[in-house]
Amino acid sequence: MRILGIDPGYAILGYGIIDMTGNHFKVCGYGAVTTEASMCMTDRLKCLYSSLTEIIAEYEPEVASIEELFFNTNTKTAIMVGQARGVAILACANSGMDIAEYTPLQIKQALVGYGRAEKKQVQNMVKTILNLKEVPKPDDTADALAAAICHGHSANANKRLAGAIKSR
Amino acid sequence: MRILGIDPGYAILGYGIIDMTGNHFKVCGYGAVTTEASMCMTDRLKCLYSSLTEIIAEYEPEVASIEELFFNTNTKTAIMVGQARGVAILACANSGMDIAEYTPLQIKQALVGYGRAEKKQVQNMVKTILNLKEVPKPDDTADALAAAICHGHSANANKRLAGAIKSR
Repeated sequence: MRILGIDPGYAILGYGIIDMTGNHFKVCGYGAVTTEASMCMTDRLKCLYSSLTEIIAEYEPEVASIEELFFNTNTKTAIMVGQARGVAILACANSGMDIAEYTPLQIKQALVGYGRAEKKQVQNMVKTILNLKEVPKPDDTADALAAAICHGHSANANKRLAGAIKSR
Repeated sequence: MRILGIDPGYAILGYGIIDMTGNHFKVCGYGAVTTEASMCMTDRLKCLYSSLTEIIAEYEPEVASIEELFFNTNTKTAIMVGQARGVAILACANSGMDIAEYTPLQIKQALVGYGRAEKKQVQNMVKTILNLKEVPKPDDTADALAAAICHGHSANANKRLAGAIKSR
């Protein structure tokens, strides 16, 4: 199963593509789509949509895993990041992909086994699980890969659960 | 000039199309795209995008006028409405339209001449300016038409300003 992880944002949108075979993960590619602060929001959203659509066409992932957003800051930022998230979801949906959403707690639990884990711990687990030499930069890329791994774990757990129910 | 006004939302997205000739406005069409609460957010966003793209193809407006969002409530709602707003902006941009954004204050000022006008006053002005028999329902539709009229006024004011500078 090929999974696209996305960490949504309007200035930096992190993405990471992994292949899962059994319990084994292999990284296919990762990076960040960035938009200049000098661009108007319309052009930024257009750029995010078209770049993500191109990435999906290149790697052909089956499912997208995207982090749910939580903000303690102001609603203005929330609306702006929400706009970028909506466009990212649309790019996946219009490319025919399934979309899974996970809370930051679920992602931390899946990666580190502890919902209150530090960001750094999650990023180090991404590096270890994917057998990378360094933690991918920027942070948004590592977070996107973490979301992808989280979906892989979750899909495996569901498969085991389905097997257990069947064998009863 | 044909203007598409949009009042963004994920459950109800109001839209209204008007033609402006000189200082005269004529309504071409209006309505609301609605999505069921039983649909997942991905399907709702997909539906908003495709419906709005169809509306644009049918009426061929040159420019979209969209209200800027302000929330005093929680950031969770802001993100959800932001997602719908992002998708609406993208539908316009991908259809090759220009996009203008106005604050609620600017829209009230343009319609009623007073930034703290009541919602009801704005809606009655929409009815009067567009020579309608009743205030369009739902409210989101009237708000979308208000955004369109606001852009028309603003475009006219800019034209007058450009003329005044030229004639100096």
